[in-house]
Amino acid sequence: MDIMKRFKVILSYDGSAFNGYQKQPSNKLRSVQGEFENALFKIHKKEINSFASGRTDAQVHALNQVLHFDSDSKMNGLQMKKALNSNLAKDVYVKQVEIVKDDFHARFNAISKEYHFLLNTGEYDLFKRNYVYQFNKELDIEKMKKAALLFVGKHDFKNFSCGLDRGENSFIRTIEKLEIIQEKKIIRFVIIGDGFLRYMVRMIVGILLEIGKNKKDFDFIKIRLDNQDSLKSNYKVSGVGLYLVNVNYN
Amino acid sequence: MDIMKRFKVILSYDGSAFNGYQKQPSNKLRSVQGEFENALFKIHKKEINSFASGRTDAQVHALNQVLHFDSDSKMNGLQMKKALNSNLAKDVYVKQVEIVKDDFHARFNAISKEYHFLLNTGEYDLFKRNYVYQFNKELDIEKMKKAALLFVGKHDFKNFSCGLDRGENSFIRTIEKLEIIQEKKIIRFVIIGDGFLRYMVRMIVGILLEIGKNKKDFDFIKIRLDNQDSLKSNYKVSGVGLYLVNVNYN
Repeated sequence: MDIMKRFKVILSYDGSAFNGYQKQPSNKLRSVQGEFENALFKIHKKEINSFASGRTDAQVHALNQVLHFDSDSKMNGLQMKKALNSNLAKDVYVKQVEIVKDDFHARFNAISKEYHFLLNTGEYDLFKRNYVYQFNKELDIEKMKKAALLFVGKHDFKNFSCGLDRGENSFIRTIEKLEIIQEKKIIRFVIIGDGFLRYMVRMIVGILLEIGKNKKDFDFIKIRLDNQDSLKSNYKVSGVGLYLVNVNYN
Repeated sequence: MDIMKRFKVILSYDGSAFNGYQKQPSNKLRSVQGEFENALFKIHKKEINSFASGRTDAQVHALNQVLHFDSDSKMNGLQMKKALNSNLAKDVYVKQVEIVKDDFHARFNAISKEYHFLLNTGEYDLFKRNYVYQFNKELDIEKMKKAALLFVGKHDFKNFSCGLDRGENSFIRTIEKLEIIQEKKIIRFVIIGDGFLRYMVRMIVGILLEIGKNKKDFDFIKIRLDNQDSLKSNYKVSGVGLYLVNVNYN
């Protein structure tokens, strides 16, 4: 009998042509997980389940998504990487595979995640149309940087997420870092935290843009953060421009 | 009666989803010209012909293709630019429109063109899969640079083109510049000339890659260049990675 081993995978994907990370029940809509497990099936000639650090929405990209699966294959990490890449579509690419201890879990062992959101305030660049969100309104970046600090730390983010419990037990998350960096006409939001609720990054960026346009003020955030009974924030930026950059483990 | 004016357009496009620049007779295959003239039709409510500096193949991109058309519209250049962009798909973008003299002709007045071809010799980057040609073989760049000099100057390029006369009268063209620039793992070919035959850039880059791999030597070029009776060169690089960068006028 062959020995079961756990494989840890670092995966990049272009979310443009996917309906999100998570496999759809019907498999009618294209998902990254469906694409990945299809490659696993071709290699193993049987169904293998995979477990990612978390989902990403439609159009959202990943530079280094992490997932794991168990297999009795005799391949080592590099062989598995090559086998996977030769069975994957061109918009999904395995950067690294390594055999890890049996108790590694891509989701439960993740201690933090880093997302970036990219905005182009310059002239439309069609080669970046799926990679950078085009935004041609004046922004008060200094005001946005101050507002961003309100989110840093441990807070209840229910009003800055889709607000539905998906088995997470609580809406409390800790944001370690929320930086806004200007690179010429590109504005990069860097967000690191111990976990993110659905739409949380997009809703945080969304309200920061409203503040940058002077349409909302700091109070809008203050009365909604940590206050489960308050109104939800209804500003959610597009998924185009959002990247899962890193998942960190101990 | 409204006055006819000639509009000069600088157009960029992502060639990935096009079957080349030129409009197809049946209009069944997507072409850049078809897309552009469709926008002209929506604006003018009648058919308007456009004339580009030249065609580009399927998958080939343009940063600054130039074309012209005549119209009795009252719009100025900026208004026409906005009207066109609001009627074009997201993979075609008008950078500039100006009203020019009646005798300007995008094709006949062009004095030179600049093409770039991009090669990635580093790890596969899925976000660049339609924009940079992935190439993972060892290349002797210094040898390629020497071979490139053979093409510079006035030559008969029949053996380095599709070889079919498309009404050009002759296969003689002058290459002003052919440079190979290394930018970390990216190799950029810069080619400037007074005109290019069909497949000429791709066939020049194709044989330079064979020479870089040490599969062919300088003689292969020498006996084919300026020699219409010799064998054709049969090395043509992919269209992915090729950009029409500039069209120059007096």
